[in-house]
Amino acid sequence: MQTSSKGVTLWLTGLSGAGKSTIANRLSEELIRHHLRTEILDGDAVRMNLSKGLGFSREDRDTNIARIAYVCSLLTRNGVIVISAAISPYAEARAKARETIGEFVEIFVKCSLDKTIKRDVKGLYKKALDGKIENFTGVSDPYEEPSRPEIVVNTEDETVDESVRKIFAYMAQRGYIDSALELSA
Amino acid sequence: MQTSSKGVTLWLTGLSGAGKSTIANRLSEELIRHHLRTEILDGDAVRMNLSKGLGFSREDRDTNIARIAYVCSLLTRNGVIVISAAISPYAEARAKARETIGEFVEIFVKCSLDKTIKRDVKGLYKKALDGKIENFTGVSDPYEEPSRPEIVVNTEDETVDESVRKIFAYMAQRGYIDSALELSA
Repeated sequence: MQTSSKGVTLWLTGLSGAGKSTIANRLSEELIRHHLRTEILDGDAVRMNLSKGLGFSREDRDTNIARIAYVCSLLTRNGVIVISAAISPYAEARAKARETIGEFVEIFVKCSLDKTIKRDVKGLYKKALDGKIENFTGVSDPYEEPSRPEIVVNTEDETVDESVRKIFAYMAQRGYIDSALELSA
Repeated sequence: MQTSSKGVTLWLTGLSGAGKSTIANRLSEELIRHHLRTEILDGDAVRMNLSKGLGFSREDRDTNIARIAYVCSLLTRNGVIVISAAISPYAEARAKARETIGEFVEIFVKCSLDKTIKRDVKGLYKKALDGKIENFTGVSDPYEEPSRPEIVVNTEDETVDESVRKIFAYMAQRGYIDSALELSA
């Protein structure tokens, strides 16, 4: 049985490979373990289900983010804790998402470009650096760092659990979750 | 305070002007009055928020319906009573929506083409008959009537309240709402 909570969108933003999906999955596992309604809107899943045909121009990225924000707003106002895990490189699109959604927590998943290039989990940076992918954030496309995010998690220095604890502490402080909620071992 | 319910999608299908939005709005008013979480995904609203740029070819209509179904599924599995009010003229796209969503009640909002042409609330039939709009369902594009909908509401013979009562009776029978839920005067 899932319990009702105050809905909120946790908006993760950061470079490809910074750790957004890893943190999103860990957050989601814990929230589900505590019987809270939660949904992850992962960049790739959303592109398949809502934005097939859109590319990576600024206009297409903005449209993609606006669609994610619309779905986040519907879920959030129905008591779901939504975790968005799209790169969302443009500050203006994130600001619009904040406005659309209302209950919005911007989480900067911070990792240096050097480190994400070294990790290169999906092999995309190599392709982008070889010129085989266009409009690749951080390589051939800009990433605008959040100027005033509610939370910064630094995935070069922190473990996933440390990042998740930081996010839970903020959520508890703001009344989105019970302060007694603890991470599983 | 909104209470938790078993989520379900009420999938209204029918010609433009058959009465889908009118029924959707009345259903939604009543459900909200009973503190149930509800969302309307109206054809026009969805086209603006999720499907800008898509036209009315079969392929584009199918894509639009698939996106609506995706959003319905997210809301439904989080306990929301979702009311979809898109024409959804193709049986195959509706069948796929049913599969995606699971808890799915197909409601055929039945009204003869003659009658919808006479009503012509938005003035669209005149334009379509004059050849000023292409791919207009019922005029220059097919509408495939549901062969086995869970509910048929006939808006030529029934009042809106009669249609809504019929839908509530079915929902109560299937445990989606309390059987004590009654229409306001």
